[in-house]
Amino acid sequence: MELRTIGESRCFGGVQGTYSHASTTTGTEMRLSVFVPEQGRSRALPAVIYLSGLSCTEENFTVKAGAQRYAAELGLIVIAPDTSPRGPGVADDPAYDLGQGAGFYVDATESPWARHFRMYSYVAEELPALIAGHFPLRAGALGIMGHSMGGHGALVLGLREQATFASVSALAPIATPSQVPWGIKAFSAYLGPDERRWRPYDATALVEDGRRRADLIRIDQGEADKFLGEQLRPEVFAAACARAGQAVAMHRHAGYDHGYFFVATMIGDHLRHHAELLARR
Amino acid sequence: MELRTIGESRCFGGVQGTYSHASTTTGTEMRLSVFVPEQGRSRALPAVIYLSGLSCTEENFTVKAGAQRYAAELGLIVIAPDTSPRGPGVADDPAYDLGQGAGFYVDATESPWARHFRMYSYVAEELPALIAGHFPLRAGALGIMGHSMGGHGALVLGLREQATFASVSALAPIATPSQVPWGIKAFSAYLGPDERRWRPYDATALVEDGRRRADLIRIDQGEADKFLGEQLRPEVFAAACARAGQAVAMHRHAGYDHGYFFVATMIGDHLRHHAELLARR
Repeated sequence: MELRTIGESRCFGGVQGTYSHASTTTGTEMRLSVFVPEQGRSRALPAVIYLSGLSCTEENFTVKAGAQRYAAELGLIVIAPDTSPRGPGVADDPAYDLGQGAGFYVDATESPWARHFRMYSYVAEELPALIAGHFPLRAGALGIMGHSMGGHGALVLGLREQATFASVSALAPIATPSQVPWGIKAFSAYLGPDERRWRPYDATALVEDGRRRADLIRIDQGEADKFLGEQLRPEVFAAACARAGQAVAMHRHAGYDHGYFFVATMIGDHLRHHAELLARR
Repeated sequence: MELRTIGESRCFGGVQGTYSHASTTTGTEMRLSVFVPEQGRSRALPAVIYLSGLSCTEENFTVKAGAQRYAAELGLIVIAPDTSPRGPGVADDPAYDLGQGAGFYVDATESPWARHFRMYSYVAEELPALIAGHFPLRAGALGIMGHSMGGHGALVLGLREQATFASVSALAPIATPSQVPWGIKAFSAYLGPDERRWRPYDATALVEDGRRRADLIRIDQGEADKFLGEQLRPEVFAAACARAGQAVAMHRHAGYDHGYFFVATMIGDHLRHHAELLARR
């Protein structure tokens, strides 16, 4: 798999790059950002994939979260893919919460989305293989995290792909998508009306249906987040975990909203969570 | 002076806000960003004004530099004004390096710029008074820094307004603007062809003409910065300082370019430089 370099900049002693490649999963050119700290010049490192939220590309997290400082301190590679396939030949919708920029980390089954919108398989399979082939990743030491729609993606991928992802965390995740407007709209379009086909993409349903991780899932949530009650509902996920015996550390933060100032404030704790779990691998 | 709140978000325990006000200096509505760390709830704090570079608004630094984490640790207020007056009634130029977004921190004397382009007086006088009236600033403990065009502004304002600014630093500054294409273009337009009228806005000329600060000026410069040789030339400023006995700490960094990944890497050292000098005030 060939990787095209769009740009690279020195950052906190490491290299922050943006790349693209022809994805066999989505059938499109996919962009991603990768930060490799200085330690990666001499040894293989643990890595974390960060999944972004609605309307984001690979760039938002890369320039706004301030993750590089912590990744440099911890010796972590951090990878941020785009949130959907893109391009003139790719299906789209004028709304910000459907189509390009809103892939929801599912493999779409419905027309016109099924051809390119295969973000679940992209993140579960092609992306880990791609980065392992081009960056100094330590085998088996890959975590996954995300924000909002990307927090949903991280929880679902973490619960289903335990052989691939050794640590999981989420910031303000859409934690029970089948029951909230964003998720109902996206799942109806991408997966069709049969709600049974939504369950493999709903973190709360996955836990209800028996999925468990041995490691602790970390979630941080701002209490001034305007989407908390209507769209995110992490407490529904936490309650399902409590009933099922899945360990979750749910941190709630007074005064914090849904934006990147919240992500930037929390990203250090999340990267430490991954570094600690991945150090054992 | 009234301040309108555009938005506020909790960030690293403090508040990151964006505000606007009717500026009597520029005759326009001016925007600024202000971060007040948690310590500001109970006591007055030192503060630093950050001046941005060409094509920036108050937003670039605010979302990209990651300054809030350090400011929260150090107990520093950080203020980022816009880089020029703006609006439909304000003179402009299609180029990125003249007009709106490119105020160069001068008081323009030439038509059509003279009416609104008074960024020198705005930063030297109106902005310090405005922030002192609305945020918990400790009197006399105000520093100034900037990047690229803003590094030029910080050096010039720091050398001329020593009663106002108690500490000065610059990242990749346009350090001798009268001798480089960006500066020659802007000064010719804003100040006219007589180069003697450029000298009060040229940090190197100011040092040559006898301006001195008692405190150390810190400058950081990336060696992979594509503008280094043609537009920035900090070594010309450093040489003038050496001849004049002005203390300058010039840090050069292999591999770093001109962008915000460089700024983010260096911002902690710069805020510490200011915090240490301002602690004595």
